Amino acid sequence: MVKAGIIGGSGYTGIILAGLLKQHPGVELVFVTSESHKGEKIPDVYPHLKNILDIPYLAPDIDKLASKAEVIFLALPNGMAMNLAPKILDAGAKVIDLSADFRFKDASVFKEWYKMDHSSKNLLSKAVYGLPEIESVKGAKLVANPGCYATASSLGLYPLIKEGLIEMDSVVIDAKSGISGAGKSLTDATHFPNCNEGVSAYKIASHRHTPEIENAVGGGIKITFIPHYIPMTRGIFATMYAKAKKTVDEKKLSAVYRDIYKGKPFIRITDKEPSTKYVYGTNYCDIAVKYDKRANNIIVLSAIDNLIKGASGQAVQNMNIMSGLEETAGLMLLPVYP
Amino acid sequence: MVKAGIIGGSGYTGIILAGLLKQHPGVELVFVTSESHKGEKIPDVYPHLKNILDIPYLAPDIDKLASKAEVIFLALPNGMAMNLAPKILDAGAKVIDLSADFRFKDASVFKEWYKMDHSSKNLLSKAVYGLPEIESVKGAKLVANPGCYATASSLGLYPLIKEGLIEMDSVVIDAKSGISGAGKSLTDATHFPNCNEGVSAYKIASHRHTPEIENAVGGGIKITFIPHYIPMTRGIFATMYAKAKKTVDEKKLSAVYRDIYKGKPFIRITDKEPSTKYVYGTNYCDIAVKYDKRANNIIVLSAIDNLIKGASGQAVQNMNIMSGLEETAGLMLLPVYP
Amino acid sequence: MVKAGIIGGSGYTGIILAGLLKQHPGVELVFVTSESHKGEKIPDVYPHLKNILDIPYLAPDIDKLASKAEVIFLALPNGMAMNLAPKILDAGAKVIDLSADFRFKDASVFKEWYKMDHSSKNLLSKAVYGLPEIESVKGAKLVANPGCYATASSLGLYPLIKEGLIEMDSVVIDAKSGISGAGKSLTDATHFPNCNEGVSAYKIASHRHTPEIENAVGGGIKITFIPHYIPMTRGIFATMYAKAKKTVDEKKLSAVYRDIYKGKPFIRITDKEPSTKYVYGTNYCDIAVKYDKRANNIIVLSAIDNLIKGASGQAVQNMNIMSGLEETAGLMLLPVYP
Amino acid sequence: MVKAGIIGGSGYTGIILAGLLKQHPGVELVFVTSESHKGEKIPDVYPHLKNILDIPYLAPDIDKLASKAEVIFLALPNGMAMNLAPKILDAGAKVIDLSADFRFKDASVFKEWYKMDHSSKNLLSKAVYGLPEIESVKGAKLVANPGCYATASSLGLYPLIKEGLIEMDSVVIDAKSGISGAGKSLTDATHFPNCNEGVSAYKIASHRHTPEIENAVGGGIKITFIPHYIPMTRGIFATMYAKAKKTVDEKKLSAVYRDIYKGKPFIRITDKEPSTKYVYGTNYCDIAVKYDKRANNIIVLSAIDNLIKGASGQAVQNMNIMSGLEETAGLMLLPVYP
Repeated sequence: MVKAGIIGGSGYTGIILAGLLKQHPGVELVFVTSESHKGEKIPDVYPHLKNILDIPYLAPDIDKLASKAEVIFLALPNGMAMNLAPKILDAGAKVIDLSADFRFKDASVFKEWYKMDHSSKNLLSKAVYGLPEIESVKGAKLVANPGCYATASSLGLYPLIKEGLIEMDSVVIDAKSGISGAGKSLTDATHFPNCNEGVSAYKIASHRHTPEIENAVGGGIKITFIPHYIPMTRGIFATMYAKAKKTVDEKKLSAVYRDIYKGKPFIRITDKEPSTKYVYGTNYCDIAVKYDKRANNIIVLSAIDNLIKGASGQAVQNMNIMSGLEETAGLMLLPVYP
Repeated sequence: MVKAGIIGGSGYTGIILAGLLKQHPGVELVFVTSESHKGEKIPDVYPHLKNILDIPYLAPDIDKLASKAEVIFLALPNGMAMNLAPKILDAGAKVIDLSADFRFKDASVFKEWYKMDHSSKNLLSKAVYGLPEIESVKGAKLVANPGCYATASSLGLYPLIKEGLIEMDSVVIDAKSGISGAGKSLTDATHFPNCNEGVSAYKIASHRHTPEIENAVGGGIKITFIPHYIPMTRGIFATMYAKAKKTVDEKKLSAVYRDIYKGKPFIRITDKEPSTKYVYGTNYCDIAVKYDKRANNIIVLSAIDNLIKGASGQAVQNMNIMSGLEETAGLMLLPVYP
Repeated sequence: MVKAGIIGGSGYTGIILAGLLKQHPGVELVFVTSESHKGEKIPDVYPHLKNILDIPYLAPDIDKLASKAEVIFLALPNGMAMNLAPKILDAGAKVIDLSADFRFKDASVFKEWYKMDHSSKNLLSKAVYGLPEIESVKGAKLVANPGCYATASSLGLYPLIKEGLIEMDSVVIDAKSGISGAGKSLTDATHFPNCNEGVSAYKIASHRHTPEIENAVGGGIKITFIPHYIPMTRGIFATMYAKAKKTVDEKKLSAVYRDIYKGKPFIRITDKEPSTKYVYGTNYCDIAVKYDKRANNIIVLSAIDNLIKGASGQAVQNMNIMSGLEETAGLMLLPVYP
Repeated sequence: MVKAGIIGGSGYTGIILAGLLKQHPGVELVFVTSESHKGEKIPDVYPHLKNILDIPYLAPDIDKLASKAEVIFLALPNGMAMNLAPKILDAGAKVIDLSADFRFKDASVFKEWYKMDHSSKNLLSKAVYGLPEIESVKGAKLVANPGCYATASSLGLYPLIKEGLIEMDSVVIDAKSGISGAGKSLTDATHFPNCNEGVSAYKIASHRHTPEIENAVGGGIKITFIPHYIPMTRGIFATMYAKAKKTVDEKKLSAVYRDIYKGKPFIRITDKEPSTKYVYGTNYCDIAVKYDKRANNIIVLSAIDNLIKGASGQAVQNMNIMSGLEETAGLMLLPVYP
């Protein structure tokens, strides 16, 4: 049994992680912390966990907790993990950070997009970007768990870049997210009467997942990435567009994807259009690739559950690989359909 | 491993059952049938099950299939199970029927509400109504799995009847259901533009779960039951009203419920208002009981996932008990929250 | 042209009122105030009003504004109108208050439910409760505009009380509201991920519209009133239950309703079940009355748009009558369907 | 008063048109037909119109009806208007066709995309494409009312083409539509449990509005157009991407749009991101234009109500212009917000 702890268990990603770890057959969940709810029982904050996780939130006392777990998940606002990770690593535990703190090798890119100086620059080169279908996290001590948009987009785009099939300056990503992507904090954008029956784009060409996707897929591309909130709770659907270098065959394109993701248990290459419905509540990423011969564009459709494959499920997947467990352990979740 | 088969696997309850049984640690799913989709691979009909249940639907040839499983689930339209159950029982398998065919001891009540003659009247007395928190299904060969509204309502109402706390002619049940309760068939009532942003009542004082609830809770009551569709996919929330025989104390009322449902793993008695969100995707029934002293009414709030505790999950729960498995086996589903 | 002004135009009821008055053929909208947004142009706060209402919010300087309008609407949090109304009345303008401040004749009832001392007790007897299908507002100087739940419920229940058809201690109202009923303020209950796909009851037997309904329909009844939020933006659907004094005929019941509401342009008595969809964006209240002969209960179904007939539209309707305009002026809004 | 009639009044566009014309101050609605509902009263089919449009559907007897109106709207499935239009024009009435029959000058394009021979080829050159912000419909006898996607997209794209600001082979349109865009017919794609909480793309690079947009904006471009259904009832949000010919200034871009659409009462150029919420229930098209300097892409955001500006409202706008009425007559609809 791997001993695991969570620092920051009161947000959506933290609490979902707590549920997944509690039910994980190879994990003992040894603590969940919350600064704002310390001392409260988890079901008093999240009633859905009554009888499932009847333990109290602990205070996030890292000095005391670091030695109690083999793997510690950090599910905190950006800018906090970079201060905690060194202590945890020193205490001998592995770190999986769900924030953006360790997603960039280059501290200046982090500063440019997150407007913060990085306080643990020396760790950046050691951190592994935890998109395990693209990058190996085996043996990693510190994993930067990807952003939700970045997961859906990078997995969809990667084979095109790897195989050199597209014009590198032509990539456009139009992503649609459920409102839970905005997190637990109350904002005008998450107020039901404001967002129900409405759709809009936001952070036009300025969303922080832009450089993350560019890094993840490699090749030095510059993408235009536009996120949208749509009136649903969970799910991300990314529609990606790129000019083909030369005319392509849709079936062969699909075969390229199947080949590259062969043996990856959470990638499903589909012929029909994916839907966020089909991956609801699961760690799957469903991908279809299409070709518009009139305009010579390749179109990739990618669907995930933003809170599972886009956050907490992927963190568990990374832990499984880092800890020598079965990659799918604790993650064989049935899609909630309909 | 219990060998289980499903007759009627193309509707919502059948396909959810298939997923649950496939992942059940104590069950081998030996067949799933569909008259309309026989020969098709399940993921071609339900893409969410790709890589999870990559088997074809078989034709519902009961003579051939009856002997292949120890438990056979019937997930068919009303009026079909009563013709199939005798054959299956003769072949030595247990039957769990998700339709209404075996829910009434009295064939005339069935006829009155379902407008059909019953073709297996002799089995009615042997059938057990599968609400295992109220009635024991241990040792049963034929179980009538309750309706979704009946489950939420009966579990909420039962302690009041059992303890004789209410005026028997005063019970009103106002139930709100997600649209999936109407099933997979396309109807005006399930057309998104018709039902989104809308709420209405239907089958005013004529819904067939009315006599089912009256039977389940006993005591000879006559209830007024009004169902409503509300714009969400899953979940039933039943608000029940009854005149108290004498003034009561809310805390003591709550204790009565906790006592009666002690040891029942899927009943959670809550102090705060339950919500369908907290039971989403699970087999839980969350219940709270309140008292309005101004009007001397007891109010019971009950929430379930209509497709799990209200159908397929409860069927698995019944199978577990009937087959000597742990009651919760295969049913420790994490609520999908938010 | 009637000169009208709005004090408190940044909440939902205030801004909808502003839109209605702007387009009203018999009204000149002379000011809209907002303490929090004073000086800002309305479309900078509410972009949907761009090119429609391109005026700035004024500061709510009542001394300066009271004399500028013939009718002043107060769309403020409870407890504020009672301080402003005297000044406005003194300045010669009529007042239509959308808060609860003037809804009770008895200051002690107000204090009991709203936990505030009333600062204008002398005005309570002069205020008219503005449910114009039940009470005449002609000639009124000060109108208390009803609450949204109270409107839907009182209009549905009133004929039963008036005609003495029901047991007075048996009335239960189960109301379902869209989330906009909670207003513009951000709360956990209005956070999209919390309320989408969820339904729950709240303020069990303690909602402040309870005594308001009891007053509006008269007869000295004590009701049990339970509100629920359901995942939609607009609309209230109230399902009302009452024991019939004697067996009744559904058609005759319906005729009673048609008779009592004859000539009332915004009441539509329907045979089929009403739906919030059918009144979306309008000032209609659709009502159907049914009878459950098994349990001898009368069931009334009532549907309104909570923000129009339940608030701003009704305020305009009251203004029309008070000012001698056509009752329907500015209110012939097409239902937005589907 | 302009006498207007509707052939095909039982679908969404037909019935919304009926409501708009009924309330139009300059129009007398003389008939509404429906083959499937002839003889039935409109409110028996559409209960929201009770007391608003209490007339029966007539049979669509064109020979009898053609002479009764000055303007006849055809709201029929594709392939029917081309047979009816000649008779109506012969009878002296103007025709506004909401189907695709007259949207293409070139019958072979129509055949390629709609798989039908055109039966009134001679009328194609006389038909005017009714996007009045781009093309003048003054004096037209036969107007082809644009498709919903085509309206949102063409209005957004047109200034870029007109001013020659973009690389012509780089245009991508990613459009998101509410489910009502699929019409009144029951389909799997409109079944609430299938589409709620789900998003997917459809008709990848094969949607029939593709050539319509290419024609409407001119310049001989070939676009990639991908439509998506998202879980809301009304609204289209089109996000358009194009490579800029040279680096541009966002403010100047915006000024170009304001200039081109100056005096167009239904176009609102906004600085902030538009939202389908802001145009809900109205004839507005809200447009914002942005620039991503990292990737040198121009992004245009365009939002409409698919059933008003995308169909029935635009048809009324065309009628107004064709009949010499004020362009905005009967169309000053308040956005339904929130």
